[in-house]
Amino acid sequence: MECLEGESCGRRLHPTLTCCFSCNSLQKRLPFLQWLPRYSLQWLQLDIIAGITVGLTVVPQALAYAEVAGLPVQFGLYSSFVGCFIYCFLGTSKDVTLGPTAIMSLLVFVYTLGDLSLAILLTFISGCIQLAMGLLNFGFLLDFISYPVIKAFTSAAAITIAFSQVKNLLGLQDIPRQFILQVYQTFRKLPSTRPGDAILGILCIAILLALKWMKDHTSRPYQGMSICHRICYLIVWIMTTARNALIVVGAGLVAYSFHVMGLHPFILTGKTAKGLPQFQLPPFSEITPNGTKTFSEMVQVIGSGILIIPLMGLLESVAIARAFASQNNYRIKTNQELLAIGLTNILGSFLSSYPVTGSFGRTALNSQTGVCTPAGGIITGLLVLLSLGYLTPAFYFIPKAALAAVIICAVAPMFDLRICKSMWKVKRLDLIPFFVTFLLSFWEIQYGILAGTFVSIIFLCYPIARPEIKVSDMDGLILTPMSGLSFPAMEYLKDKIYEKTFTVSSPQSVTLDFTHVTAIDYTVVVGLAELLSEFKAQGVCLTFSGLQPPLLHMFSSSGLTELHHFHSIETSGGSFQEDESTQPLLRNGIVSLP
Amino acid sequence: MECLEGESCGRRLHPTLTCCFSCNSLQKRLPFLQWLPRYSLQWLQLDIIAGITVGLTVVPQALAYAEVAGLPVQFGLYSSFVGCFIYCFLGTSKDVTLGPTAIMSLLVFVYTLGDLSLAILLTFISGCIQLAMGLLNFGFLLDFISYPVIKAFTSAAAITIAFSQVKNLLGLQDIPRQFILQVYQTFRKLPSTRPGDAILGILCIAILLALKWMKDHTSRPYQGMSICHRICYLIVWIMTTARNALIVVGAGLVAYSFHVMGLHPFILTGKTAKGLPQFQLPPFSEITPNGTKTFSEMVQVIGSGILIIPLMGLLESVAIARAFASQNNYRIKTNQELLAIGLTNILGSFLSSYPVTGSFGRTALNSQTGVCTPAGGIITGLLVLLSLGYLTPAFYFIPKAALAAVIICAVAPMFDLRICKSMWKVKRLDLIPFFVTFLLSFWEIQYGILAGTFVSIIFLCYPIARPEIKVSDMDGLILTPMSGLSFPAMEYLKDKIYEKTFTVSSPQSVTLDFTHVTAIDYTVVVGLAELLSEFKAQGVCLTFSGLQPPLLHMFSSSGLTELHHFHSIETSGGSFQEDESTQPLLRNGIVSLP
Repeated sequence: MECLEGESCGRRLHPTLTCCFSCNSLQKRLPFLQWLPRYSLQWLQLDIIAGITVGLTVVPQALAYAEVAGLPVQFGLYSSFVGCFIYCFLGTSKDVTLGPTAIMSLLVFVYTLGDLSLAILLTFISGCIQLAMGLLNFGFLLDFISYPVIKAFTSAAAITIAFSQVKNLLGLQDIPRQFILQVYQTFRKLPSTRPGDAILGILCIAILLALKWMKDHTSRPYQGMSICHRICYLIVWIMTTARNALIVVGAGLVAYSFHVMGLHPFILTGKTAKGLPQFQLPPFSEITPNGTKTFSEMVQVIGSGILIIPLMGLLESVAIARAFASQNNYRIKTNQELLAIGLTNILGSFLSSYPVTGSFGRTALNSQTGVCTPAGGIITGLLVLLSLGYLTPAFYFIPKAALAAVIICAVAPMFDLRICKSMWKVKRLDLIPFFVTFLLSFWEIQYGILAGTFVSIIFLCYPIARPEIKVSDMDGLILTPMSGLSFPAMEYLKDKIYEKTFTVSSPQSVTLDFTHVTAIDYTVVVGLAELLSEFKAQGVCLTFSGLQPPLLHMFSSSGLTELHHFHSIETSGGSFQEDESTQPLLRNGIVSLP
Repeated sequence: MECLEGESCGRRLHPTLTCCFSCNSLQKRLPFLQWLPRYSLQWLQLDIIAGITVGLTVVPQALAYAEVAGLPVQFGLYSSFVGCFIYCFLGTSKDVTLGPTAIMSLLVFVYTLGDLSLAILLTFISGCIQLAMGLLNFGFLLDFISYPVIKAFTSAAAITIAFSQVKNLLGLQDIPRQFILQVYQTFRKLPSTRPGDAILGILCIAILLALKWMKDHTSRPYQGMSICHRICYLIVWIMTTARNALIVVGAGLVAYSFHVMGLHPFILTGKTAKGLPQFQLPPFSEITPNGTKTFSEMVQVIGSGILIIPLMGLLESVAIARAFASQNNYRIKTNQELLAIGLTNILGSFLSSYPVTGSFGRTALNSQTGVCTPAGGIITGLLVLLSLGYLTPAFYFIPKAALAAVIICAVAPMFDLRICKSMWKVKRLDLIPFFVTFLLSFWEIQYGILAGTFVSIIFLCYPIARPEIKVSDMDGLILTPMSGLSFPAMEYLKDKIYEKTFTVSSPQSVTLDFTHVTAIDYTVVVGLAELLSEFKAQGVCLTFSGLQPPLLHMFSSSGLTELHHFHSIETSGGSFQEDESTQPLLRNGIVSLP
């Protein structure tokens, strides 16, 4: 047990010789070793409540999402439990719950068109790519999702997810999945609202809001509180904290009572398939009526989904994990998250799962219910397994309107546009990626986050593509790039030189002052070589100055043998000063012709 | 006429008051005004030969590509002439020919599934997006395609396109489109080679190679050459320069002779539809058996194709234009290219065209045949129009094997891996985007260029995400970011601070020295605010030093009221020195608590 306290034993022995190095790296790879020793009964209570609440949501959601993915409903449940167990041991966020999500289900459908073998193979390949990215520390790629993009994504997702539940809340049928069409069709079909579902749903939302308000306005117990007060406090605490589970169970009982009376005012979750999935190899070939599809043919059919699915999975999960980490003041380890999702998908593919990722709705629910560690996932996972094995009849009576109310109340607080005011004051340019993400998310949510990230990266790279180039015109033209010179700047530099040189009547000699340039790439070398040959063809002199040794070496390696180079420019008179210190390098195949 | 010489009259009058400003901008927007005054008879000869050669290739290619796009064959021809005329007036590359291409045709099929109305609407929308990008000067986005990526793309495209013609060369049937499957199936079906096609195809290639060799090894005419020599030279010049047209016409005559004899040893181009397309509005709604599809429903069906098609169109065309500009020593204007493609697609959508872009194969053919100006396109366009109107029977007899030979010989010189050796010597890291592009291009060519560009940008942005942070430990911990601080670096900075502070037994005070940081963004401000609140919660002191006024202003705007800030660090003793000059700013809502 002492080994878990890496720092305490690290000071006694030489670090490389102790078990502590392996302890630390073990703790890094198995984050549950960090919270397990501190685990308390209070945490257990909260984790169990959160686990049950999430479990009661994941089961009907999983059935619905499987239909979105074009798969038999039980495959939603098969995809829901592996992540719960794996993430408990490998995850670094207490809130994230892995499982089937609306976005991922839709993407899976787009790329596999309801072919079960393809979906499971895609899970395996996605997992391998995600695991590889985690092991190769490619998590830094996700640092390129900026805070405004994450905020816009979560706000838009909150609206999209909440609105997607309005149809269940009002008992409307045949509502399309795409947000804009959904809004249109929901309002168009408003007259066909089922009164039973609507009353129950709105009542559930009202009760949830009231319980939430109570939770926020109940003062904490203090010393010297009477036993009676303490019991009251405990009842209120349980009711407000487990309010989601309460609503689901309560609504289920109401629905059951009506059922017993022979009335059916609510749309219920209905029958779910029983039995656990078999543990077997993912299908690396598929037998179809037209013959056997090989692995490569299956991969061909999936096409770009092989990259899109794992990347969107990571993007979604890490964005959610970061959003909740930032909200609840803790830190996630990106590469470890990648490992957790990757392993979940790999193991999942052996248990007939389709690709999973972090679920925004259930993560919000988990966080709101007050989960303390990822151990809540074990309860959720067990609930899914139990439901697969035994509890199916009990879930039959959960009204969809009650689940809709739970989800709407869970995601509502994630909608937060106050950040806009703050961005307006601090940095207005950041509003652009924000609104790009926000607005495009209503078209297709994955486009929102991709486009927002794209715009952020454009802002980031624009100064690289258009570096400041100082132009001074003395004896000849002197162009001085004021920062580094990378490939996106080469066309700009060339245009600048052409504009200053060949569009005037008598081209004058040009000097490129590379004093501030510390690194260049192959494109720049090729571009400069082209410039040199063009200048030679036009009979105009192009000289370099201030080239640092590594750059000189690159030029000489590229076979640029006729390079005029001066060590520095005597800027006062525009005249050149050749320095002896460059001579040894100039012998390196570079001819200096002053 | 004098107005065309913008520079000469620009010196006589005040530039803003003369017509020259408008002349220059007119020349910029209508690049043909630059070459038209210098147009010569020799150029005309070469342009006509190139125009005819390309025209004789584009007609059968257009028919084939229309089938790839899932559209009736005449729509390939409808898509082939608009670009020729528009590009002649608006294009900045002499070589590029716009029209249907293999990649674009396939992408159109993926997104429209053979629905003609959708395809034409997609042309219109793509054109609008491309035109908007050109007008907004978004051409700089294409600067992010580096030279190694372009070279890898062209080399891979050369192999892909050449190999795609092997089936026509050998008369093989039912060969799939995807490169790897194509190679497999071509070799598998080698025994069913049609001898007639194979002999004709290989003969054509041999003749083309011989004529090419003759062209490269014929010495230029000199003063005092006899008339006889001059005539011989002219015949050789015409034969070698117009070798592609020669082969096509010759093979056509051979095929016709066999036809007259009642023999059919070759697969011919066959019948093509007659008649010009009607000039009409693109279909903004569609009447289907299931009712009328509205504009928004049509856009929904196309989905992400609305962005992918115009972007891939620009990417392909500009990459090709740059490759040939670099090969033939001239410069293109990216934004003008965008305008030309955009307008081509917009106007094309009124003439039932599906989305077009620069064709690699025909551009190579055009360049090889020695085209001098984009005027060659007029001939090509006229040939397409003539063929639509009258010449269809003449194209009937062109053997596909001869066209395959022309294309193979045209693209072969674009395969060039010598750059690898050069990159190995100059900058090895650039080999990675090269090989990523090269290898992925064989999977799907658009993925190659996208992935290669992605990798290049990652290399470009990595130093932004992982800036150098100097850590010095004196009285307290001092962290000094050595360059700018943007959003991808924030998580890294936080991790660094956490690692140095909270993972040791007794956390010490931390100073962030921002002397080298000139600009930050909203994500950084939020990250620093989170850091401050975390440090406060842990009871550890976090101080800033060297914050420049704009940064201080951003902090105060964001409502960070409890900021400890010192003007500079007395680094020798690690002690702080508060400067009075910051006082006026510190009153700006920022409380200094030294």
